[in-house]
Amino acid sequence: MIKIAVLGATGYAGIELVRILSAHPEAELKILGSQSFDGQPISEVYQNFAHVLDMNCEKLDLERVAECDVAFTALPHGASKDVIPSLIEKGLKVIDLSGDFRYDDIKVYEKWYGQEHSSPELLAESVYGLPELYRDKIKKARLIGNPGCYTTCSILGAYPLLDSGIGSPDNIIVDAKSGVTGAGRGLGLGYHFCECTENTKAYKVATHRHTSEIEQELSKAAGCEVMISFTPHLIPQKRGIFSTIYVNLNKKCTAEELTELYREFYKDEYFIRIKEPGKLPETKHVAGSNFADIGIVVDERLDRAVILSTIDNIYKGAAGQAVQNMNLLFGLDEKTGISGAGFYL
Amino acid sequence: MIKIAVLGATGYAGIELVRILSAHPEAELKILGSQSFDGQPISEVYQNFAHVLDMNCEKLDLERVAECDVAFTALPHGASKDVIPSLIEKGLKVIDLSGDFRYDDIKVYEKWYGQEHSSPELLAESVYGLPELYRDKIKKARLIGNPGCYTTCSILGAYPLLDSGIGSPDNIIVDAKSGVTGAGRGLGLGYHFCECTENTKAYKVATHRHTSEIEQELSKAAGCEVMISFTPHLIPQKRGIFSTIYVNLNKKCTAEELTELYREFYKDEYFIRIKEPGKLPETKHVAGSNFADIGIVVDERLDRAVILSTIDNIYKGAAGQAVQNMNLLFGLDEKTGISGAGFYL
Amino acid sequence: MIKIAVLGATGYAGIELVRILSAHPEAELKILGSQSFDGQPISEVYQNFAHVLDMNCEKLDLERVAECDVAFTALPHGASKDVIPSLIEKGLKVIDLSGDFRYDDIKVYEKWYGQEHSSPELLAESVYGLPELYRDKIKKARLIGNPGCYTTCSILGAYPLLDSGIGSPDNIIVDAKSGVTGAGRGLGLGYHFCECTENTKAYKVATHRHTSEIEQELSKAAGCEVMISFTPHLIPQKRGIFSTIYVNLNKKCTAEELTELYREFYKDEYFIRIKEPGKLPETKHVAGSNFADIGIVVDERLDRAVILSTIDNIYKGAAGQAVQNMNLLFGLDEKTGISGAGFYL
Amino acid sequence: MIKIAVLGATGYAGIELVRILSAHPEAELKILGSQSFDGQPISEVYQNFAHVLDMNCEKLDLERVAECDVAFTALPHGASKDVIPSLIEKGLKVIDLSGDFRYDDIKVYEKWYGQEHSSPELLAESVYGLPELYRDKIKKARLIGNPGCYTTCSILGAYPLLDSGIGSPDNIIVDAKSGVTGAGRGLGLGYHFCECTENTKAYKVATHRHTSEIEQELSKAAGCEVMISFTPHLIPQKRGIFSTIYVNLNKKCTAEELTELYREFYKDEYFIRIKEPGKLPETKHVAGSNFADIGIVVDERLDRAVILSTIDNIYKGAAGQAVQNMNLLFGLDEKTGISGAGFYL
Repeated sequence: MIKIAVLGATGYAGIELVRILSAHPEAELKILGSQSFDGQPISEVYQNFAHVLDMNCEKLDLERVAECDVAFTALPHGASKDVIPSLIEKGLKVIDLSGDFRYDDIKVYEKWYGQEHSSPELLAESVYGLPELYRDKIKKARLIGNPGCYTTCSILGAYPLLDSGIGSPDNIIVDAKSGVTGAGRGLGLGYHFCECTENTKAYKVATHRHTSEIEQELSKAAGCEVMISFTPHLIPQKRGIFSTIYVNLNKKCTAEELTELYREFYKDEYFIRIKEPGKLPETKHVAGSNFADIGIVVDERLDRAVILSTIDNIYKGAAGQAVQNMNLLFGLDEKTGISGAGFYL
Repeated sequence: MIKIAVLGATGYAGIELVRILSAHPEAELKILGSQSFDGQPISEVYQNFAHVLDMNCEKLDLERVAECDVAFTALPHGASKDVIPSLIEKGLKVIDLSGDFRYDDIKVYEKWYGQEHSSPELLAESVYGLPELYRDKIKKARLIGNPGCYTTCSILGAYPLLDSGIGSPDNIIVDAKSGVTGAGRGLGLGYHFCECTENTKAYKVATHRHTSEIEQELSKAAGCEVMISFTPHLIPQKRGIFSTIYVNLNKKCTAEELTELYREFYKDEYFIRIKEPGKLPETKHVAGSNFADIGIVVDERLDRAVILSTIDNIYKGAAGQAVQNMNLLFGLDEKTGISGAGFYL
Repeated sequence: MIKIAVLGATGYAGIELVRILSAHPEAELKILGSQSFDGQPISEVYQNFAHVLDMNCEKLDLERVAECDVAFTALPHGASKDVIPSLIEKGLKVIDLSGDFRYDDIKVYEKWYGQEHSSPELLAESVYGLPELYRDKIKKARLIGNPGCYTTCSILGAYPLLDSGIGSPDNIIVDAKSGVTGAGRGLGLGYHFCECTENTKAYKVATHRHTSEIEQELSKAAGCEVMISFTPHLIPQKRGIFSTIYVNLNKKCTAEELTELYREFYKDEYFIRIKEPGKLPETKHVAGSNFADIGIVVDERLDRAVILSTIDNIYKGAAGQAVQNMNLLFGLDEKTGISGAGFYL
Repeated sequence: MIKIAVLGATGYAGIELVRILSAHPEAELKILGSQSFDGQPISEVYQNFAHVLDMNCEKLDLERVAECDVAFTALPHGASKDVIPSLIEKGLKVIDLSGDFRYDDIKVYEKWYGQEHSSPELLAESVYGLPELYRDKIKKARLIGNPGCYTTCSILGAYPLLDSGIGSPDNIIVDAKSGVTGAGRGLGLGYHFCECTENTKAYKVATHRHTSEIEQELSKAAGCEVMISFTPHLIPQKRGIFSTIYVNLNKKCTAEELTELYREFYKDEYFIRIKEPGKLPETKHVAGSNFADIGIVVDERLDRAVILSTIDNIYKGAAGQAVQNMNLLFGLDEKTGISGAGFYL
């Protein structure tokens, strides 16, 4: 059994990790780290865990964490700075859900996050935890930068088109819609039920940090610098991200041809489901699962592809993907504990 | 592995069964019965099953079903009439999700359903599938009448109080609120999103069939005929039933005393969680799980208990409880495949 | 034109007052009182008012308020204590939306609110602002205690039955469900979208303050002391209260007879709509309006009436009823500015 | 008073018209046309109208309609074909909410609607009912083609930028999100509450008819043929459209400059509210009102404007705009009866 610490266990990504791991056949939850709920049973903080998981939250104690094999760090921005290097030093594998270890180029991080990076050497060593692109590196890593939710959804949707050279790197638009769990459990007027229900809005237009993460990966796909318009929106549902991606085509193609291209690109991927032409994904199809569903439309009037990509933002976009990475790190079947169909209802 | 037929697999209760069973370690889904979608892959009807379950729906073929060990019948009212006797005859265990096999007294059935019963002998033999009350009988049954959603929630909430003699059988009120999945997948203006969201209403006040099922069980608990007011309401959420149960007390007691009574009554029950005094259940705590959460308030001004009971209507109120019954029928640990914490998010 | 101050204009009840009054043909909004948003345009705090209402919020200045004819006080509990006596002294009419001036008996107030009352004389003078019961007194009042949301809904539903002597004062149950606007705009984890959507729960069972207000009025109707079970629930919608009221009947009657009784009782009331037997109210029918819809079912098995009563909690349950009171105070047609059909959609 | 027939009064656009007109000071509703509910009181079909509007629905009788001054036709596609010419002939003004009279070029209509147009002469005469662009023509028209919901939102958002020559006509993307009222009251599995809530999806990608309407108007603005990508999405709320519009800029500009451009363009428009730089619109700000809120972001990295435009789809996107057109047709102040702030809550 893999001995596990979840640091930041009571945020939304953290508790989804706990939920998945509490039913994972190879996982042994040892530590539920939480500053705010130190000493409280997890089943009081999240009452759905009564009778299921009998553990108390605890504040950070590095010696105790050091007894684990792996730590998931789902800490508030900045809080993981000191923790992660210590954990690595003590020989743990670390899967970090913050933005700190997702970048190839430290300058990109520092520009978009507006601060110096505290562990440049670890950043250089860390592996971007998108298994569909970096599976082999992930298997050998000590430190994984688990991708952001918007980015997972958008990169998976656009990558094959740019990689093939058929999609033009210019004029790419990613218009993304996210459920409210993406904002976390912190209070804010904008997340009050009465303000949020029956409401759709955009936020951080052209300035959201995930822009840089998407651009990093699509640039590698395209083999040249890609800059995109990325617009996040908040929609009145809990789970789900839906990215609508517009890519001009360098040559005439049909939806059938592009669908075939995507099927080939993702042919060994259990968690990627390419819709047949004419069918489109919906967030409901992926909610509560680790799947990414991708549909492809070609606007032949404009020689432009419209790629529809959807994931569950706290599952494939956070906790589920983190477990997928853990499975790879420890030599398990990648699907262990996360292979199921979503809720639908 | 238990070979399984789900008849009526594409309704909401049916597909929740399929979802649970597709991840159940001892279950082998053999037949997904559906008249409407005969020949179609289940992953087209419910696209969340793509890559998870590669089976086609099929219309009823008794010979094929006869190769299974157990059939779940989640058929439209009336449709199971002929099917179930044939299946029993062929040696299958049957777990029926309709109202047809839930009654001790055929007259009660005929009064509330307004029709003759087609299989009086099977009705007499059938066992009411509420494991917390009838576990031993269930283990030996051939035919289980799986309880209704409102009834599971309400009976579990009121039973200990009446069984103990502390609750008065007179003036019991059950005010119940249900999510919309309870109405099934059939179309109707009342279930149109725009009519249903931001709306609460009562329906079938004083005439809902589940009244008779609740009365049957509470009468057994009380040892005398119990008649209740039962009011179902439709609330704008998918999953969840919340029953608020008012019972006059035959003697002064405190919430602490009643809580202790309930804890004792359900002391071996994994799926029943009694809240400590001062804590109350919420549908969110049980959604996506087989748990029933029960909270107890005593209004000492009035010598009246207010019992708050909640379940997930399509899980513990339908599919999950049906699997719990299957586990018992086949000698498995009752919790197999249904022990997890709910979604919360 | 009536010169108006709304004190506490930026809470949910306050802003609904502003919305209604900004379209009222006889109203002139002079002061939008808000401590938190002093100096800010109301159209920045609630951006739906841009181009409609060009006024700034301001903190309390009694001299300025004194130039108005009427003040609506929608202040946080306790904050109105000093303000209201001053306003009355300066000759304004005051319509108070807090619980402070709703009681006949100061002892009841002090018991349920757990504090001494600061203005016993004003309490003695104040009139309970339920026009359907106290229209004549309201017309002559200086100070109106505007009823609570749950209480308006529940009293209107139960009053005729108790007043007629047909309803028994014993064993009355009021099971009420409220939308989330009832909790106001303050932040709290329980009102976070992700915690609130897809969730139903009860709260303050047997201890909610509105219990005492309902009991006060129903006792007057019955001519004897009435004590009720009152259970408030939070349901995942913005607007609407739905009260399900159980009253034992002193004699056999039909739904038709009781419907006739209610029609007669409310025969001159524009804002009360009695459903014909067999039809039931829904919160959607009253959302965004000043109407109260009431449906009546008789459970002839039990000689018990089930009264279904619904209002919009921040309209007829707060702001709309306050304007109805203002209309009466100033000799206007009671319906002025609040006569419209609700949104439905 | 203007005598009015609403034909198709019981669809969602129709009933919103009835709601607005029933409170309009110059409107006299004479006929509520409905094939399905002929003879039924409108207050039974939409129970929010009890006590407010005492009229029966009636099936089409041209002689009776001929006594009116104006007819709003909100009929199912195709049904208005024969009716409208007759009404025009009898001297009524007609405001048609279908797509039939929105086109300058009959060929565009026939291409996108896949059928011949039945009244080419009337199409030639009809005026596109977007008052902010065609106010003078509307005043003198006999027949108004009331714009679609997506199109109103998108055209208002993009027009000034193309008209000014600063926006490039190439590579325009309109990514639009609509509430479910946009789909009307007809039943469909996709509009069942349980399928629709917690779900976001795209539909009719690159093929939706509103594409052609947007292109027609933007081509006039730009002075050249404009072709756009238009992607409609269904989001889990009742009211509201949010269009995110991407337009490349022909020269460097700031958000401040473009905001000033929009303010100047719409300087006399009550119903258009341009957000100051840094503020963004939300559907909640316009729900229940005739306003269009527009926010402007410039991505200076890409020389691309991102325009965020939002309206209430059944108000400014259908019924409210139709009343705005009626006001113009009859010489009233354009704002009469539709000037209020939206619900917010």
